[in-house]
Formats: sequence, C-alpha cells, structure tokens
Amino acid sequence: MACMAKVQGPVTVVPTVDPSAVPEGAVAAATGPGFDLDPEVRRVVVIGNGIAGTTAATEIRKLNPDANVTLFGHESYDFYNRMAIGKLMSESTAINNLYLLAREWAETKGVEYFPESRIVGVDPAGQSVEVEDGKRLDFDRLVLATGSRAFVPPLEGFGMPGTFVLRTIDDGVQIQQYVRRNRCRQAVIIGGGLLGLEAAHDLSQINVRVYVLNRGPWPLDRQLDEAAGSLLSQMMGDLGIAVMGRTSAVRLLGETKLEEIELTDGTTLRADLCLVTAGIEPETGLARLAGLELDRGVVVDDHMQTSHPHVFAAGDCASLGGTVFGLWPAAMEQGKVAATNLLGGDVSYRPTIPPARLKVAGIDLLSVGEINLPASGGSEILLNEPHGRAYRRLILQGDRLVGAILIGYPELFDPVIDAVKANADVGRYVAELEAGRWQVLENVSDLVPA
Amino acid sequence: MACMAKVQGPVTVVPTVDPSAVPEGAVAAATGPGFDLDPEVRRVVVIGNGIAGTTAATEIRKLNPDANVTLFGHESYDFYNRMAIGKLMSESTAINNLYLLAREWAETKGVEYFPESRIVGVDPAGQSVEVEDGKRLDFDRLVLATGSRAFVPPLEGFGMPGTFVLRTIDDGVQIQQYVRRNRCRQAVIIGGGLLGLEAAHDLSQINVRVYVLNRGPWPLDRQLDEAAGSLLSQMMGDLGIAVMGRTSAVRLLGETKLEEIELTDGTTLRADLCLVTAGIEPETGLARLAGLELDRGVVVDDHMQTSHPHVFAAGDCASLGGTVFGLWPAAMEQGKVAATNLLGGDVSYRPTIPPARLKVAGIDLLSVGEINLPASGGSEILLNEPHGRAYRRLILQGDRLVGAILIGYPELFDPVIDAVKANADVGRYVAELEAGRWQVLENVSDLVPA
Repeated sequence: MACMAKVQGPVTVVPTVDPSAVPEGAVAAATGPGFDLDPEVRRVVVIGNGIAGTTAATEIRKLNPDANVTLFGHESYDFYNRMAIGKLMSESTAINNLYLLAREWAETKGVEYFPESRIVGVDPAGQSVEVEDGKRLDFDRLVLATGSRAFVPPLEGFGMPGTFVLRTIDDGVQIQQYVRRNRCRQAVIIGGGLLGLEAAHDLSQINVRVYVLNRGPWPLDRQLDEAAGSLLSQMMGDLGIAVMGRTSAVRLLGETKLEEIELTDGTTLRADLCLVTAGIEPETGLARLAGLELDRGVVVDDHMQTSHPHVFAAGDCASLGGTVFGLWPAAMEQGKVAATNLLGGDVSYRPTIPPARLKVAGIDLLSVGEINLPASGGSEILLNEPHGRAYRRLILQGDRLVGAILIGYPELFDPVIDAVKANADVGRYVAELEAGRWQVLENVSDLVPA
Repeated sequence: MACMAKVQGPVTVVPTVDPSAVPEGAVAAATGPGFDLDPEVRRVVVIGNGIAGTTAATEIRKLNPDANVTLFGHESYDFYNRMAIGKLMSESTAINNLYLLAREWAETKGVEYFPESRIVGVDPAGQSVEVEDGKRLDFDRLVLATGSRAFVPPLEGFGMPGTFVLRTIDDGVQIQQYVRRNRCRQAVIIGGGLLGLEAAHDLSQINVRVYVLNRGPWPLDRQLDEAAGSLLSQMMGDLGIAVMGRTSAVRLLGETKLEEIELTDGTTLRADLCLVTAGIEPETGLARLAGLELDRGVVVDDHMQTSHPHVFAAGDCASLGGTVFGLWPAAMEQGKVAATNLLGGDVSYRPTIPPARLKVAGIDLLSVGEINLPASGGSEILLNEPHGRAYRRLILQGDRLVGAILIGYPELFDPVIDAVKANADVGRYVAELEAGRWQVLENVSDLVPA
C-alpha cells in the first residue's frame, strides 16, 4: 500500500484490503510527513475510539510528534474487533481476545486518551468540545469518528425481550445469555448480508435452529450472482441454516417476550429470538449539534473534510458522495486521510469496494470487484464444479479482469483478489482459465499492463 | 491413586488430589469390576451432571457395561469447570473453554444423558423418578448428585441490583456485564476464602478496586497460620486488593441498586458491586421430597449410601459424619465410591483434606495437612525469607511431616504435597530443611517408612 509519509502533493490513496498487512511502524520509520505541517494545528481532538478514530489519532502523532492529540471514547470497552463479536454468542471467544490494542497503547503513542468519556457538545466556531462532566476542551482541528449504530427498520414488536441487534460486545453477550436462560431453540435473523449469515452460523453453534430472512432473491445479493447465491443457500442449509429469499418480517409477536414472527407471505415462524442485521445508521448526533452539513451521514469531501474547514469526519459516520461505506478498511483509510489533511497535507480518499469474504465454517466464499457483466460489454469464464459444492466465475472487460466470485478454492482467493485489483490482462491465459487452471493468476505481475 | 477396578473386599479409597492425574481409561482397561456385580442392579439413574454425577455415571458403565445408566442435568450448560468461572468476570476465557467433556461424551460412554431436564420427584419405595415433563423413569439404584448452591448469610439488601454470588457460568457473565454497564469502580467481596480471593483478583483485572471482607483474622484462616495470612494480605494489597480482617457486612444500602455497604465496625464502604463468597449450601430439595435423612446435606455413610438402601448420594449434596466437603476431588471420589457400592462392591470413602492452592497471578501459595502444632506435641521448621515476600513452614509430629505452608517456591509444591501425604519421616534431614534445602523432600520414597 502507499505509505502516507512519502505522499507528495495531491495524490490518491487507495485503501488497503487487509489492515493486518500494514506493518506497524512503517510510517513512523519515515523521516517526516512529506508535506509542510500547518503551524496553526497544535491541538487535535478525535471523538471515537473505533478503527477510524484510533487510526486518525495514531496517524496524527506519527506525522506531527509535537501535536497534542486527545482521543475520546464513550464505550465501556477499549477498541475491539467488532467483526468477531459473533463469537461471544457462540461462546467461542473471550472478551479479552477481541481487544485490538494493548491497554497502554495511547501512552505508548503519546495520545491523550479518555475512555468512557462522552462528548456532549461541539462548537466548531469556538473550536471547542464539551465533555459530559462539563469540562471544555479547545481544538485547532477536530475529527468526528463517532461510528454508527445498527439500523432497525420500523418493525412492530421490536424492542420486546428476545429482539436484538448485534453491534457491540454487550449485544453479543446478552444474546448468548438470552439463548441460555430462555433455552432458545429457534431464531430468526432479519437480513441476509455477511453479518446475518455469520451470526446465523454462530447461533447454530449453540444448538439454535436459524432462519435467515433475506429481502433480496438470494443471500449476499449485492456480492453474488444468482448461481453462487443459490449454491450458498444450499450450503447454509447443509449447516442447518435456512435462508429464505424475498422474505421479510411484518411484525414480531409475543405476550411478554418474542414468540412468533409474521412474514410478508402471511405465514408465521415460531421464534425464540430475533436478530436484526439490516445494516448501519451513522451516528450524527454531535455533527447535528455542531451544525455540520448532513445527508445520511456527516457530509465530507474526498479530503474527509466536513462543511466546516476545521472539522473532519472518518469512518461509519462519514458520508462521501452520498455513500456511507460502513467497512473496516474504508474507515481505517479515511482516518489516515483525515489525519494527513488536517495537518496540512493534501491527499484524497478514493473508495474501492473491498472483497467480501464469508467467515462461516466449511464455506469459503469470495466476491471481489464487478459481479455483473459491464454494460459496455464484457465476457465471463464460468466453472460449475462437478461435485456441485463449488463455483468459480471471472468477469472480464475485454481482456481485463474486473471481478470474480468463488465458492471453494480458498487457495485462489489471494491471487484472484490481486489480479482483480490490478485489472490484470488475462487475454493470453483464457484457455488455461477455462480449463480451471487458475493458478496462472498467481503471476499477477506478468498480467499487469506495463 | 488406588485403582477402583482392582479393589477387593472392604478397603479404603483415598481421594486423589488432582483429577487430571487419573489417566482416562485406567479403570476401563481392567478386565472386570473385581467384585460380584449385584444382578438386581440393571437400571441406574443419576441426578446431576457435575463432577460427582458424571463421574458416577461413567464409573457405573465401566464397572458394568450391561447396566442401563441414565443421567439428568438441569443446567443450560453441559458439565463445566466451575473453578474457572471467575475468568468470565475478568473477560479472559471463552465459555467454550470451560466445558470438561466433549459434547458427545455420553454417547461415547453409553450413558443416556438428558441435559436441561429437571427431576421433580423421587420415590425410593416405588423406585422411580419423575421428570418435569411428567414422565416417570424406574430405577434399581439412584445416585443423587444434585450439588449445591452458593450460601448467602442473612444480609439486608442482598438481592438488589449489584449483589451477586459466583456459582454458575451465568453468574460470571452477569457480573462482567454489570461491571461494564454500570461502570463499576469499587467492589466488596464478602468472604476471604479461596473463591473470594480469586474473584477479587479477577475483578481487579477489569479495573475494579476490590475490598475483601474476612470474618476471621486473616485470609484463608483455615489454611494459613497468622504469619502466612498476614503476608498473603500484604501481597494481595500489592495487587490493589484490600483484605479486611475480622470484618463483616451488616447491610447493603442503595436506592435502586447497591451503593454502600455498612460494616460491623459501623463504617460504610462505597460499593458498586457486592459478591458473596461465603461457602455453599447443599441442594437437598429432592432428597427431602424423597424422605431421606438430612442434616446439613443428604446424610450418607462411608459407602455414600443414604438412609434408603437403594439411594446413594455424592458430591456437594452429601453429608458424611456431619461434613459437607464441597471440594472437587472429594466429589469425584465420592461418585466413584457410590458407583462401586451400588453395583455390589464394598469400598469406603475416607476423606482427606486436599491441599489448598491459590490461583492468583504472582502469588504462589500452598497449604497442605495440619497448619497447627498437634495437641499431642510437635515441632516446626519455619523460614521467613529475607526479602519478605516468601514463607515456608513445616509441621512435624515426632519426625513425621504432617503439614506445610508455603508462600513462594512453587517448584517445591509437588514434593511437599507428596511428603506430607506420605507422612514422610524427615528426621535425618532436619538440618537440611532448616537450612532451606527443601529439595531433599523430592526423594520422598526414601522418607516413607517401610
């Protein structure tokens, strides 16, 4: 990935796919920020201790060791791996294993960190924030990294015992406890995205029968074509998880706790537990108080700058060109871009859709890049494996690789991701690819146009 | 340890100290039970899926592969390591890590296992039990292994939010959640035994300041002498845990949840959380319904036979000579003794007090055997280490080793335990021991009288 410290002038930073691939200290080892630090910027406040906020705070300190960086987080837990909280439902991880930074990380990095501290007011003109205990703190630049909460569509009965979202450590723990204490046997998950499917698998691990309601025709319908989606449905079925397409919940029914769910087709499903995994809703409360421009999220330009020049936003709360990315690598990259620009740098955030991988035992699934033939014309290489539990498809535009879907063949995931990201020219390998010898993609450097 | 399968006639079985030291299948490998199986005993019901119940069920199947063994457990969780649930409070283990038997253990062993099934009635005369769903099951012999619950002394205010015991997985999880959701900063533990001290350490791991109230003069006053107890207090203090001797709670105070604890000395302590670790209370409800003789627990003889000849009891629910042992190795051994005798064998359970070890980071503590000089006369070898954070004491009766207390020197724990259990004759090594060279105890075989 591009090393931020070496960036010169207006360039584009492409987010990296795998955060763990960025070597710790890679940037710190550089000799300077590579741009003129804005002398006006001495005190930076970052609100939010998730991936966007911690990345921004760390990055600011790296780029300007003299800057005063203060980070506020209001969760009871330090920065943790939100993508693994399903393992708390399935009883298979310790909360301690979810933390992504050592307890003393802020000290080590020279960041002033206030956990469990809620910011209740932001005054961009006065350049100060107000902490819930009444204290005020001045800033030269502010980063809003307030994240998001789970989105729950209007749904009669949601909120009664037995209805949950899965967003925080406590959500995961409370669901586990509810399942055990109420001896739940059957759960319904509303939403057939990655989170919903993974949660379905996690719940099945503690002997709960799971139904997944998917509004679209097949699961992961934004990442998979029909054939792959239908195969995924079958494979989930093999794990005891029923994915119901073109189905949604109308209302949740129960006397003192959830008992049944009425579906759009008029039928009802018995349900001891209902989990809504229908996406996220940006946390914009502070931005609204601050009078910043909002659409679905906090409106930012490609410098992650909000409508106020001294206020930046990054991560799930930020909306760029109407899009809220809601993705870990995007949040990390946005945090870095915000950090660079607020210190006087000039880098743009260019979104790319990262590959989607499903983390469900026994199912290896990858979707990267385009999943439909380009409107301008394209071709595909499609392999339905004879044993019926694997699927491979490449999407080409001319001779260039623009997308891929794989079910099975996890050893090919990395070469395929690299080749798609590089827009590899696979013209001379079409016969190999059609014959199933996709190992040729491993030589991606040969395939990239000079 | 004595192998049950080789026992002939009326003998005494001494419980093993470390359950993990018993090789799996050691008994199964023997060719037969070593006694005449009672032909009348074909159907055995075991109530309780803790260490006593699972051990009894497994042992019965080993001794008589033709017997029909049915095990009932009513907890939502399979048999787990109760001694590690504090790690759920400290967020450092996964629930899955606590299970001690594979999910399919009962099938493997040929035991009919009904988890989450509560027995609501026992009829010894009619030789049947009643399950909560109304079904009845006949038995030739019955084992009550119903365990115990946490004992809470009468204490005004106990039961309000913020007051807990620590007995089950759910207790551990609920305490963790209460600490996080209420941002608890200070906890009071009532009871300075092993469980209380370990819980104190676990809570301190999630940044809670802990006070331990100990009725006796120093912590672990039944296992430690004053010098060792006072050193332990200091060492707990070094970990940020205050142990208060000769102190107890009078009442718990708070509007809607716990806020303060009034102590016997008239002062009050602020407390966001109160955990009572004051021992156990045998679960005797079913035994009472069955009309069995009770004292504190279900009265058994040294064959683990209750007042009804077809009903046996083992583990925390059983009371032998007025004593409820409440110890893991005792429960395991009692399960084995009950299994042997109910099938027609004739073995006695002879209690020994197992060594006490404290599992708190940085503190290595052992107490084994006698901690006071025998009334009939004895001597001691006492070493207060110069750096003031270690302590060693041996109790002798004549030249025989009858007890030991160590703080520090974990490498000596095993030899010391072996030597005390063997009543080793250390007469000729007194000078070595007084000089601190306790490694001589490693040659325990030399020290055991022929």
